Amino acid sequence: MQAQFITLDGIDGAGKSTNLTVIRNWFETRNLPVLFTREPGGTPVGEALREILLNPATQAGLRTETLMMFAARCQHIESVIAPALSGGVNVVSDRFTDATFAYQGGGRGVPLADIAALENWVQGGLRPDLTILLDVPLEVSMERISRNREKDRFEQEEAAFFTRVRDVYLSRAAAAPERYAVIDSNREREAVRQSIESALNQHFGF
Amino acid sequence: MQAQFITLDGIDGAGKSTNLTVIRNWFETRNLPVLFTREPGGTPVGEALREILLNPATQAGLRTETLMMFAARCQHIESVIAPALSGGVNVVSDRFTDATFAYQGGGRGVPLADIAALENWVQGGLRPDLTILLDVPLEVSMERISRNREKDRFEQEEAAFFTRVRDVYLSRAAAAPERYAVIDSNREREAVRQSIESALNQHFGF
Ligand SMILES: Nc1ncnc2c1ncn2[C@@H]1O[C@H](COP(=O)(O)OP(=O)(O)O)[C@@H](O)[C@H]1O
Ligand SMILES: Nc1ncnc2c1ncn2[C@@H]1O[C@H](COP(=O)(O)OP(=O)(O)O)[C@@H](O)[C@H]1O
Ligand SMILES: [Mg+2]
Ligand SMILES: [Mg+2]
Repeated sequence: MQAQFITLDGIDGAGKSTNLTVIRNWFETRNLPVLFTREPGGTPVGEALREILLNPATQAGLRTETLMMFAARCQHIESVIAPALSGGVNVVSDRFTDATFAYQGGGRGVPLADIAALENWVQGGLRPDLTILLDVPLEVSMERISRNREKDRFEQEEAAFFTRVRDVYLSRAAAAPERYAVIDSNREREAVRQSIESALNQHFGF
Repeated sequence: MQAQFITLDGIDGAGKSTNLTVIRNWFETRNLPVLFTREPGGTPVGEALREILLNPATQAGLRTETLMMFAARCQHIESVIAPALSGGVNVVSDRFTDATFAYQGGGRGVPLADIAALENWVQGGLRPDLTILLDVPLEVSMERISRNREKDRFEQEEAAFFTRVRDVYLSRAAAAPERYAVIDSNREREAVRQSIESALNQHFGF
């Protein structure tokens, strides 16, 4: 089996960061080489772009923001993801292009076709082999977030926004069920862990 | 006549900055409203992107760089160029998309079709009404530059690079002669000034 490209996605507060450990343990137990990364991938360019985007003073327009996201992704792919995959190392990314469809597309209204055009421009044929989509009702994610930390610019958006974001995630998963494992994250951590592990087992044929 | 979008382009050292004054005087003499700008347009996002791009330590990949150029342009159009034009103010930009075709395309090898795709994505139907292309042989521009200032990252490229850049400028002008005024900038300043003024007179019907 070729090295696999796996992404973890879902609305803020769905449990992505929390469950990275689950995935890490799964790979370690099986002694499979794996690289963990997250958008924008820790590249100098990507981090600089991220700083501009997260700064509430910057006021990048919506389409400008979308281009900057893809610029960061382009560098992330070129210097992190693609080299790992072609060296036989599996890659797990905390967020990827689904998030752009969901946030900039569903949330903010960039036409999904325009996002797809940039996806093709930047990624060529590269798509995740498996996307683990952690899904929770909006109220749950909101409550989890507000309990625990300061909100950044994206997290300050209103409930209607996150509802549209979640809807795009779910409809993309429904349209390509072979690529997505949708996992109900509104359960005990242990139950979520088990679902993630079986999704990985199934994908890797264990 | 609608407000016109005019761009000034050409290889480094061709005389763009020098001849902005000529254009400024032309508009002032005729009492025509005009806004002067340059890429990336003085927007906070654009300036931040420019800083990343001009920093030799950054090492953005070629396609990442191209996306960042268009991100800056997107913001420049949205917050500077489009509002001026729709308010009836002519706009003169020191460099625009022709430079991306020439530098990232001709110079560095991004397929011109890929640049055209981003041009459509970012600009929709917006194209310059007139592009004043200042053309000089490579040796002349090189000599003018080396005499006068420190070279930035782009200007450090080798002669073959600038030859390809110049060729793309010239072939784009040849392919759309109604949109370009190609001006031989390897002449006395006074002769160049006269050519620019007649290009403007002709375009505006004076
Ligand atoms: N299954 C769960 N049940 C209850 N709380 C959870 C669960 N999973 C994660 N959390 C908590 O919810 C908050 C958001 O989780 P996090 O992993 O940071 O989400 P994300 O990375 O998707 O934004 C954290 O405080 C985390 O501890
Ligand atoms: N017609 C000309 N003859 C000789 N030198 C010129 C002429 N036009 C410009 N220069 C000089 O060439 C150098 C580069 O010109 P500049 O306007 O900065 O070019 P650009 O903005 O296109 O890079 C400057 O030092 C300028 O004074
Ligand atoms: Mg997280
Ligand atoms: Mg100049």
